[in-house]
Order: sequence, then C-alpha cells, then structure tokens
Amino acid sequence: MRLTRYLLPTLKENPAEAQIASHRLMLRAGLIRQEAAGIYAWLPLGLRVLKNIERIVREEMDRAGAVELLMPTLQLADLWRESGRYDAYGPEMLRIRDRHERELLYGPTNEEMITEIFRSYVGSWRSLPLNLYQVQWKFRDEQRPRFGVMRGREFLMKDAYSFDLDEAAARRSYQRMFVAYLRMFDRMGVKAIPMRAETGPIGGDLSHEFLVLAQTGESAVFCDRAVLDLPVPGADVDYGGDLTSLVEAWTAPYAATEDVHEVERFERDVPAERRLLARGIEVGQIFYFGTKYSVPMNAVVRHADGIERPIHGGCYGVGVSRLVGAIIEASHDDQGIVWPDGVAPFQVGLLHLKHGDGRVDAACESLYASLRAAGLSVLLDDTDERPGAKFARMDLIGLPWQVRVGPRGLDNGTVELKHRASGERREMAPDDAVAFLRQALSPLQPDDQP
Amino acid sequence: MRLTRYLLPTLKENPAEAQIASHRLMLRAGLIRQEAAGIYAWLPLGLRVLKNIERIVREEMDRAGAVELLMPTLQLADLWRESGRYDAYGPEMLRIRDRHERELLYGPTNEEMITEIFRSYVGSWRSLPLNLYQVQWKFRDEQRPRFGVMRGREFLMKDAYSFDLDEAAARRSYQRMFVAYLRMFDRMGVKAIPMRAETGPIGGDLSHEFLVLAQTGESAVFCDRAVLDLPVPGADVDYGGDLTSLVEAWTAPYAATEDVHEVERFERDVPAERRLLARGIEVGQIFYFGTKYSVPMNAVVRHADGIERPIHGGCYGVGVSRLVGAIIEASHDDQGIVWPDGVAPFQVGLLHLKHGDGRVDAACESLYASLRAAGLSVLLDDTDERPGAKFARMDLIGLPWQVRVGPRGLDNGTVELKHRASGERREMAPDDAVAFLRQALSPLQPDDQP
Repeated sequence: MRLTRYLLPTLKENPAEAQIASHRLMLRAGLIRQEAAGIYAWLPLGLRVLKNIERIVREEMDRAGAVELLMPTLQLADLWRESGRYDAYGPEMLRIRDRHERELLYGPTNEEMITEIFRSYVGSWRSLPLNLYQVQWKFRDEQRPRFGVMRGREFLMKDAYSFDLDEAAARRSYQRMFVAYLRMFDRMGVKAIPMRAETGPIGGDLSHEFLVLAQTGESAVFCDRAVLDLPVPGADVDYGGDLTSLVEAWTAPYAATEDVHEVERFERDVPAERRLLARGIEVGQIFYFGTKYSVPMNAVVRHADGIERPIHGGCYGVGVSRLVGAIIEASHDDQGIVWPDGVAPFQVGLLHLKHGDGRVDAACESLYASLRAAGLSVLLDDTDERPGAKFARMDLIGLPWQVRVGPRGLDNGTVELKHRASGERREMAPDDAVAFLRQALSPLQPDDQP
Repeated sequence: MRLTRYLLPTLKENPAEAQIASHRLMLRAGLIRQEAAGIYAWLPLGLRVLKNIERIVREEMDRAGAVELLMPTLQLADLWRESGRYDAYGPEMLRIRDRHERELLYGPTNEEMITEIFRSYVGSWRSLPLNLYQVQWKFRDEQRPRFGVMRGREFLMKDAYSFDLDEAAARRSYQRMFVAYLRMFDRMGVKAIPMRAETGPIGGDLSHEFLVLAQTGESAVFCDRAVLDLPVPGADVDYGGDLTSLVEAWTAPYAATEDVHEVERFERDVPAERRLLARGIEVGQIFYFGTKYSVPMNAVVRHADGIERPIHGGCYGVGVSRLVGAIIEASHDDQGIVWPDGVAPFQVGLLHLKHGDGRVDAACESLYASLRAAGLSVLLDDTDERPGAKFARMDLIGLPWQVRVGPRGLDNGTVELKHRASGERREMAPDDAVAFLRQALSPLQPDDQP
C-alpha cells in the first residue's frame, strides 16, 4: 500500500480524552475514530490489525474442531424470556422496538440463540460433540464507556458454544478450548495467563479468564512465575487426544485476579522468589455451565440408550476488538506501538527519504515490488514529508521492520533496516534486505482449511 | 470438513413459507435459519458462501484502489440531522434510544458517517482521489420482509464512497467502480448487466444498477443481446488509465429495467432479433451524487490554487448477503443449487458410499488428504446414510464436483467423478481424480494484497 493513496490520519499530540496508553496510541496512530460514546469506526490501519486477530482466532478455533456460523446482531426479546434472562439482564441490554412494535435487542451474548439453533437441528448423540462459534459485533450499553476499545459499547467478540452428552465430555470440550486459547494468544505475541474465575451472570461452576500481562492492566494479578515459562502447545497438538495433563500443567501454578485471590494460599504454595504481583487485561473467558440453558430451553438429545437428556454446555469468549487495545498495552514504548509480527497491520514499512530523487524512487519501487512478490505486506511512505516526520510516524504505527531508502545509503549500495522492537539497525544491499526479511517474516498464508 | 463433525441441517420438503427458489433452497440446503422477520442466522455452509462473496468483493475493490475501513452498525441521530435525512428517511430507519436516552439508529447506509470521517482527516487536494469502503451489516426496517435474504432487514452490504476534486475526476472514480463491478460479478459466476438507473433517495444525476439475469428475477429487464457477449475486463485492467471506452462499450447497448424502459427507443435502436426481454435481480448500484452531501456537511478540500471547494462524491453498493440468493436464482435446477466455482462453499464433495467398509474408509481418507493437500476445500460425507440420500443431499447443496467412492468402483480401481453443473460423470483412478480436480479447480488463494 502506498501511503499517499491510503487514509492514515496520525496525530502528533496526545488526545486529551484518552486516559490509557492503548487508547492514546490507537487515536494517535490513526487506528480508530470515536463515533459516539463507546462506538468506534475502525480506520484502515486499525481494521487490518482487527482482521489479523480475527484470522488467528478462526484458524485456532477451526484447528480445535469448532465450526463457524454467524448469528444476526439483533435478536427477539422473546428468546431471552425463555431463558429468564430478559428481565434479569439489566440496563446494559440495548432494547429496541421495530416499526411493528416488536421487541428486539442488540445481542450482548448468544447463549439463548445458539441453544435455539442447536435444539432445532440436533437430536441425536451421534452429532456430538459439537462446538459452534461466530465472530460478530455485540452491544453492551455500559453506563460509562471508556478506555477506547477496551471498554466500548459496540465490540467484536468471538463466542463459541459447546454441546456435549455429559459432564465428562463437556469437560473435554472445555479443555480443547483452553488449549486453543493458549495457542491463539501466543500467536498474537502476548503472554496470556489462564486464571480460575468466577462465573458471574453466565452461570456454571467452572471458568477461566485469560489475562494478558501488561503494566497498565486493569486488574491486579497474583501468580507463580513458573506459569510464565510453560511451553505453549504447538500446531500439532492432538485435539482428539487427552489434554488433561496439558491443562493441569497450566492450571497447577498459582494464578489469580484480585477478585478471587487467596493471600494465604499464595504465600503457602508459592516460594517468595516466584511470587509475581503484576497487572493484566482480560481478553478471554471460558465457562462450563452444564445444563443451565439446556434445561429451561429444552435442548435435549437422544442418547445411545434411547433416552433424551439435556445437553451439557460451555461457552468460550474472546474479546477480538478489545485485544487490539490489550496487545498495545502489552507492547508499546515512548515512540509508539510495537506490533508483534502476528498481528501487525503491515509487516514492513518502506521509507522513501528523498522526495523527487529519481534513484530513490527507483530503489523504492523495486523494493516495494520485490517485498510484495515475496508475500510480505508493505506500507510504502511515498509522501513528500521530511525524513524526521517519516521516522516518527513509522515508529508510532509500530510495523515490525522498517526499510529506509535514501540517497546516502544508495551511494554505498545499501538501504537501512530497522527492527522496531529492538531498535537494532543494519545496512545492507537492497536484494539482501529482501532475502533477510523473507526469512525474518513469514509470508501471508491462506486461512487453514477446516 | 467431515460431515459428521459439521452442522448441515438439510430439509427434504419445501418449507411452506418460502415463495421463491433461492429462499426455498437456502432453507432446504441448511444455509440460513430465520431468527425473526427478515433477520437470519447464517449456518456454517451458508456462511462459507457469504465469505467467498465477501472475499471476491474485497479483492476487486482493493485492485481498483479502494481502501477498506469499518464503520460501526450504530450511528448518532445527530449526524443524520446534519444532512437533513434523519426525518426524511421514514420508518425503514430503525431508531434506538440508549440507557441515557441518546438517539441512535442502526445504519441503513453510511453517506453521512463517511463524509464526517473524511472531513475530519482530509483537507488537501493531494489526498485525492480517495475511495473508502466497508463490508458491514446494515438494517432497513422493511414493512414486509420476504424472499429470505433477498429482502431481509439485517443484511450485509459492501458500501464504497469516493471523494474527488471535481466532476471529471469523480466520473473517473465512477468508471473504476463500474469496471470493478463487472469483474466481481463475473468472478462470482453470474451475468450481471449494468443498467442506467434512477438515483432515488441517495440523490445525484448518474447511476447504474447491476442486475443478475435470472428467470425468477424480481424486475423485468429489456436489453440488447449484444451486451451478453461483451468481454469482461481481465485482472490486468489498468485502473490508472482511461476507462472511458471500456465503460462506453458496456453502456452503449440498450439495457433498462422496467422503471426506466423506453419502448420507442428500444424498438428503434435494437434490431428485433437482438431484443431480449428477461428478468433480473439487482445486486449492486453505483451513484455519482456530486456535492449533495459535501455541501450540507461542509466536506471541503483545499485545491492546488489555495481555494477550498466541496468534494464531489459517489457511492457504490453491493448487496453481499442478497447475492447469495441472487446467485442461487441464477444457478439451480430441480435437484438443488448449482454453485459457480468461485463462490461454492466447498469445491469438492467426497461421498463415502459403504459405511463400515474398510477399503472404502481407506480410499476416502486418502482422497480427503490428497485433495486438501492440493489446496482444495472438501466436504467428506462420512455419515452412515444410504447412497441415495447422500447423492440427493450432495446435489441439493450443489458443490461443483462430487467424488463418489464405493466398493464396486474400487474393485475396478476407480472412483466416480460427477460434475454438478453438467451432470457429466466419469470413472477414474483415485490419483487421476486428484490430478484432474487440481486442474479443474483453482486452489484456495490468499487474499490479494493491497
């Protein structure tokens, strides 16, 4: 993409309304624009990050055997009356009347609708286990939306729902999601720690939150440092096999948010030198809720013995739009964002440092073509601004690698590479730069086929 | 994907509520489920088609130089008061009050919001031309939603907005979209004919609708058969060059919907043997509306001469969810849907014809792995149903190619290929079938990089 043909409205000053780093940087780097309290437009650069996160989420959900569908944003109020949650949900539910005075609502979550879909089509034990997921916009009418996309009202969420014959099978479904979550957050370049959690309004008796560690996180977290060194399961993890030991390894070390923190247990079980007091941002939560929705909504299947029994359910959320903010909280410096490779909006920023210089024009065009032919995504800064402004903007938007092309380097036959995260720079011949970046960055891949 | 691990609820009977072929077939083939009047959930198979259409739309928009962003579904009423359309829009606009009694609406279209975004960030002639687009859910509270996704209330639309310095440049932007539309519909495997159209509530003085020809189309269309034989521009079309002659070639032959049909002109200009009276379904419309929104909303840019002038705008819609229905209207038979290759939910249906036969199991597993390794998407029918039911379902869901694996064929070392569109069948060795299908179908491609 050529910057002169793009929309990238960066800001030099910190916007007054933004209280946290990610909100400031998302506004400054031209990722989002507020359209109403807690409602944002995703500008082109921000949308690319959002889509990268979506892609990773989908690939890992598909790999774990989940099946994607898409439910509408609006739902009938009557569906929520069936589960008893319509009145219970409170003012965060956006209630709507259409032209015929029918009561609708903007879905804040989808347990009711997915249960209704399931019971309409699935009647036999043969169809289970089944895990259905979607990536869809949701709305919660927060009393006081703030912190940008971290606590917005209209937000993008991945929500998955598992259906199983009994508790034992449902716990296996839960474990598959647990492992898929470890993988997806790892691919996004953040440390996300699973922590035992309260189940809240979703219900049930087993739940874990996944928190991204960030100094500016919203919650205090207390954990055993041992959890930081656990190896994340590889792409070859066997979702058909027994994942118990893997999940146990990740849940054995102490890890708790302040809500459920037990000081005594922490001090008894964790040696002082391994006690980590950090802060974190919740980016996902998984629940096993048993028959909480299947009983009132009559979602039953016939077992092999011919008897119908309510299914055992779980649900599994990831805050897709919130993750954009959480990743920035975990990965930024004074100059701006430092995107992890897996989610960066472009992999390479190519800087043209001398407007009107034919040699620099030619070198940039050639590099732009070669890098793209190597399957890399490239943002070419072809504006007529001065180099200092280009350096500052490129650091602010945080692409993993910069290639700086100017007349002085070309005199020596070189361009300059800068690695955004480490700040390391090196000179090399243009062709070597392409070969180096092709090695350092993976080319874009088509989505894994389910 | 293995059918036993999927959710594909096909129906044997025609649902009583569906009046048109696409609605019937979308329900019967398990593509959608109605959740409220005009509001649908996209079941897994339907979502795959929707995403294929989205992908083609994005690739062709990017190729034509448009830049993707994403606006929220909900908008502030005040924004529409600025353009004067809030009161004018009527009961199709879904009006909402949030917990603080602020007036919101579910966007039926986005001219106001994109103009507001544009004027906030773009001030100089240097940034133009600019074409911003999104693929987003919209809501129009139709008095009487019907015909499934063809006239739904919550629907997915691609909407693009161009910004230019003057009318001449805006007409060039219009031409780029005109050409991109020819390409995208062609890639979806349908004949879409551009027809001069009324501008309606969007405003402006230049507009074309694109109608997919289908016997069951909603509108009568009158056209010169010559338009059917025009070559669609290739992927190498030069969007930077002059597209006038290309657009003129496509607009010269007579083509009109009944709304604007001129009998006299038709009979004068089109020889009798070339007069085509057909039916069509509108799947896209493009508009040049000049300064209709930029003047009231003060979207101006400074020209090279230092003077600020309102921009000249156009907008360009594609009914993404509607296209799923339109493609089915144009491509089905008595047995079911006949998906064009470009949008098919899976490219190959692999049928296991003898449950419990180890040789068939092994041949199916081997074919499943080889076809996927060749980059093809495959739905393996591994259920225990009888062959007749499997044939009927596979014909109903309309995948382009079927590979039928049974004991009798394997005795001769062959499997049977069936081409859904032509009905043609042939026997070949499993390895030859893989090689043949790899040739016949393109492997999945990553999205074109912008």
